[in-house]
Amino acid sequence: MAQYEELRKRLESKSIVKVCGAFDAMSAKLVEINNFDAIWSGSFAISSTHGVPDASILTMTEFFDVASNMAQTCNIPVIADCDTGYGGPSNVMHMVKKYENAGIAAVCIEDKTFPKRNSLLKDGANELISEKEFVAKILAAKDAKQNKDFMIIARVESLISGMSMSTALQRAEAYEEAGADAILIHSKQKNPDEIFEFADSFKGNCPVVVIPTTYDTVKINELGNHNIKMVIYANQTLRAAHLALTNLLQKMKDANSMDDIQNEMSSMDEIFELQKMFEIHSQEKDIETKLKNMGYIN
Amino acid sequence: MAQYEELRKRLESKSIVKVCGAFDAMSAKLVEINNFDAIWSGSFAISSTHGVPDASILTMTEFFDVASNMAQTCNIPVIADCDTGYGGPSNVMHMVKKYENAGIAAVCIEDKTFPKRNSLLKDGANELISEKEFVAKILAAKDAKQNKDFMIIARVESLISGMSMSTALQRAEAYEEAGADAILIHSKQKNPDEIFEFADSFKGNCPVVVIPTTYDTVKINELGNHNIKMVIYANQTLRAAHLALTNLLQKMKDANSMDDIQNEMSSMDEIFELQKMFEIHSQEKDIETKLKNMGYIN
Amino acid sequence: MAQYEELRKRLESKSIVKVCGAFDAMSAKLVEINNFDAIWSGSFAISSTHGVPDASILTMTEFFDVASNMAQTCNIPVIADCDTGYGGPSNVMHMVKKYENAGIAAVCIEDKTFPKRNSLLKDGANELISEKEFVAKILAAKDAKQNKDFMIIARVESLISGMSMSTALQRAEAYEEAGADAILIHSKQKNPDEIFEFADSFKGNCPVVVIPTTYDTVKINELGNHNIKMVIYANQTLRAAHLALTNLLQKMKDANSMDDIQNEMSSMDEIFELQKMFEIHSQEKDIETKLKNMGYIN
Amino acid sequence: MAQYEELRKRLESKSIVKVCGAFDAMSAKLVEINNFDAIWSGSFAISSTHGVPDASILTMTEFFDVASNMAQTCNIPVIADCDTGYGGPSNVMHMVKKYENAGIAAVCIEDKTFPKRNSLLKDGANELISEKEFVAKILAAKDAKQNKDFMIIARVESLISGMSMSTALQRAEAYEEAGADAILIHSKQKNPDEIFEFADSFKGNCPVVVIPTTYDTVKINELGNHNIKMVIYANQTLRAAHLALTNLLQKMKDANSMDDIQNEMSSMDEIFELQKMFEIHSQEKDIETKLKNMGYIN
Repeated sequence: MAQYEELRKRLESKSIVKVCGAFDAMSAKLVEINNFDAIWSGSFAISSTHGVPDASILTMTEFFDVASNMAQTCNIPVIADCDTGYGGPSNVMHMVKKYENAGIAAVCIEDKTFPKRNSLLKDGANELISEKEFVAKILAAKDAKQNKDFMIIARVESLISGMSMSTALQRAEAYEEAGADAILIHSKQKNPDEIFEFADSFKGNCPVVVIPTTYDTVKINELGNHNIKMVIYANQTLRAAHLALTNLLQKMKDANSMDDIQNEMSSMDEIFELQKMFEIHSQEKDIETKLKNMGYIN
Repeated sequence: MAQYEELRKRLESKSIVKVCGAFDAMSAKLVEINNFDAIWSGSFAISSTHGVPDASILTMTEFFDVASNMAQTCNIPVIADCDTGYGGPSNVMHMVKKYENAGIAAVCIEDKTFPKRNSLLKDGANELISEKEFVAKILAAKDAKQNKDFMIIARVESLISGMSMSTALQRAEAYEEAGADAILIHSKQKNPDEIFEFADSFKGNCPVVVIPTTYDTVKINELGNHNIKMVIYANQTLRAAHLALTNLLQKMKDANSMDDIQNEMSSMDEIFELQKMFEIHSQEKDIETKLKNMGYIN
Repeated sequence: MAQYEELRKRLESKSIVKVCGAFDAMSAKLVEINNFDAIWSGSFAISSTHGVPDASILTMTEFFDVASNMAQTCNIPVIADCDTGYGGPSNVMHMVKKYENAGIAAVCIEDKTFPKRNSLLKDGANELISEKEFVAKILAAKDAKQNKDFMIIARVESLISGMSMSTALQRAEAYEEAGADAILIHSKQKNPDEIFEFADSFKGNCPVVVIPTTYDTVKINELGNHNIKMVIYANQTLRAAHLALTNLLQKMKDANSMDDIQNEMSSMDEIFELQKMFEIHSQEKDIETKLKNMGYIN
Repeated sequence: MAQYEELRKRLESKSIVKVCGAFDAMSAKLVEINNFDAIWSGSFAISSTHGVPDASILTMTEFFDVASNMAQTCNIPVIADCDTGYGGPSNVMHMVKKYENAGIAAVCIEDKTFPKRNSLLKDGANELISEKEFVAKILAAKDAKQNKDFMIIARVESLISGMSMSTALQRAEAYEEAGADAILIHSKQKNPDEIFEFADSFKGNCPVVVIPTTYDTVKINELGNHNIKMVIYANQTLRAAHLALTNLLQKMKDANSMDDIQNEMSSMDEIFELQKMFEIHSQEKDIETKLKNMGYIN
């Protein structure tokens, strides 16, 4: 399970690393099949599939189970959104060990207070913990990780919470100095101006990461031009599933037969394929052959 | 949590009860919003979202967690697909207690051998346990249930496994006599003929249930005409999510900006709504008002 | 599952309710067998059995699983130690719903900051949240509970954290006014003086609860004399198991045969009894009889 | 996490490897502290702590969680009792991957039918699957394992189920040929005669393992003399905990104060030590020092 090295390698060899959000192992596998570089196991999406608000209602256990399941199912790196780190420095240490052991390639923690609110919520209260407190969490994370390639991504929420650009930059640089392997700068502006300003002014050496949810008109080459090394499309898959299901169910409700909606669905066989249902057949054949060779079957 | 009574009431008052499959709490909530009568928590779909074959790879624990989460999130009844009952009569007893306690309205068990294979798999081996053995499971289930309205649905796999119509009918009648509250007759024919024959010949009193996956051209009123009381659309939501994600990811991979795909997704606010993210706001407002009245806030 | 009513009834009918801590379903069952009134599902003990510090390292999910398992296994009420409530008011609301649905009779939350430290740790930092903040959590808990007999126990940590008696009393009264159904006053003194002073001075109407770990010489009738209605022996079972295992393993290490230590162990049959292993036999016999009556067996 | 190699090394370097059963991470840690070579994560004991019969009532998920937690907490190898492998060859493949990934050193599977009954139950039905069927499971396990040192232990239940010695030997040799890394021969005789006969007659090359529960007078050097390479004391810790709790609770029930029972318990500090509660302190100190060096604290 060398997903750590893989993520590092892609960061070094590609102009920009493209990461796509998923909410379960099936969506993660589809992200892999469609040639993204890595999977984002996001709290917003996973909370949604569990029917609860993105507000620290699920515990680390449920988020971990999904991320770990993705890592077992997929061959590309999984980056786990770990919100505030689920507590103080001690909790972060335990968390890092648990995620690294499970073959997850990176964790992302943010400098909000616990319990968190989704960053993009209108009127969302986004109080931050102090720079010192968050630096303490990064020091703990760095201490706990065992493989040098396992990545700790520090997410700076200063711009979201209305603090100044210089504060955001100062925090980012402090987080890198404390041991962060990448800086995720988050924004809820409709355009990428403040993100670009941040990326252009950042004095650190580690990769800058963005999540262009609100400034969704930004072009991929623009990000590269501003020295942004990783882009995460965090919630598009979840929102597409929501729309597809909404449309389907409205039709199904009134449909006379399911035949009417057959174009809106993959076939059973396509799902069997994804589940590796057919692989069981070939494994069974393989065992049968061995049993024959051993004389158990004629 | 009177979901048991609710399912019974709908079976009595409606000509046909329409049940739609879901694979997590979000898809279950969307089924509810679109006015289906109940939610099917299906093994095939849940196995898919976990990235594993529908072949008893996941344990009862994972299937239960999803069904239980649906029951907590939704106000309509949840029917849990419990495969072979996860063992013998003792396992079935424990299972029934666990599911009933969690507010799930019904469980469905089938007369296949453990570990199971998905019934619709080509060349799928579908050996059945003996009538006696399955009757023993139903007796155990009936003994374990506490609320008379909690439903035990017995799924007859005789037609799937190539046995005769008379065997299917005999088993169905034996299962009802042993305590089954409904009979699910499964078929993988492309047309509903054998289903109709079964329903027309069935001498029992309990409701007949079908899952028209392969004979998807069957019309809803045809089912009613043959005295079928419940139809389960087990896997359409999962397959629609798979198709939508496949299409989306292909576009995203080549998209210059996410703006290009905005029509294929619900908005963040629509998801916040489903998660009851805004309810947190109103709860907090409510607590704030109380704190004011108590003098804690000016 | 009327464990809520049972706990209330015992509080009303007994001079003092005796609660004993457990750390898994077996120890909980032994508490029940030995005629205690209720089971304390404690964080310290459960953290220990998971090999982690009592410092919010485990999440609500693991604590809930154990408490829920106890409630399924036992017939006496389970009181769940829920630390700080696992977040703010919204988290508390979700928590209360989850625990009440699982048939747990009461939850206890305390006015410490998250992540918590065990209260009895030397030099343990025990910063408290403000009275207002904790009142907000109790208001949320009260709002979320559905059965009036489900109990919210508010644990006052003022004396532990070095605040004055009058602060402790003021908080306790404020918590009761906000909706707490009982007040747990905690102390780490070697004698019960401050506990008695608190109980004698408390103006509220709800029961006062104590955990005499450090002041372990206090007599049961003394507690009653000071109008204390519930005593929780939180960690004795865990510590006894630790000592017994330590002694046993030292002997086992050097033993020539296991025969040497047979007096230090219960028999296999005693464990089978507790597990209800023999009940499976009688259930199977019962099903066999029914199968005979139905003609399946001669 | 090189627990695989560690177990192999001990098997090669020691005359007999001593393994002790545990039922949670605390008991596992105590096994380690008392210098046993490895930990047995046993189904009987874990079922007991969950309050359910040892009859495949718990699923792989719960057994895995405990074994995985032990592996995270301890530095000596963990051997997981995996009953019948939780299904057929496909289930075994998934199981082996899951356990190996979690850092568990070995799994043990047995040739009973599913759902199993504890082997030592009087009148316990112990029907076996055919040699061919169990060989198929071992072939699957061998195929799935990735590290050559990960061990698959095949447990032969022939003697328990009343089959002949020659059948037991034939099965054992067939299991080794199929890929088993060790043979566990189980017996419920009161003396070790049949075990010795088996070990003396076994023609295979892999280590022979025993669990002397019923023939508990057997001496450790006798086992060695019969070329038995590993002894597992599977359930003593659980039974000692049961006895200690039973005795303690009887005294507690009647005790006037907890002072009376203080000699029967470890101190809080001993538990804090085991939980690594004090390590949190030193980690926090360490972070504080770093924060000072970085100028965050004066």
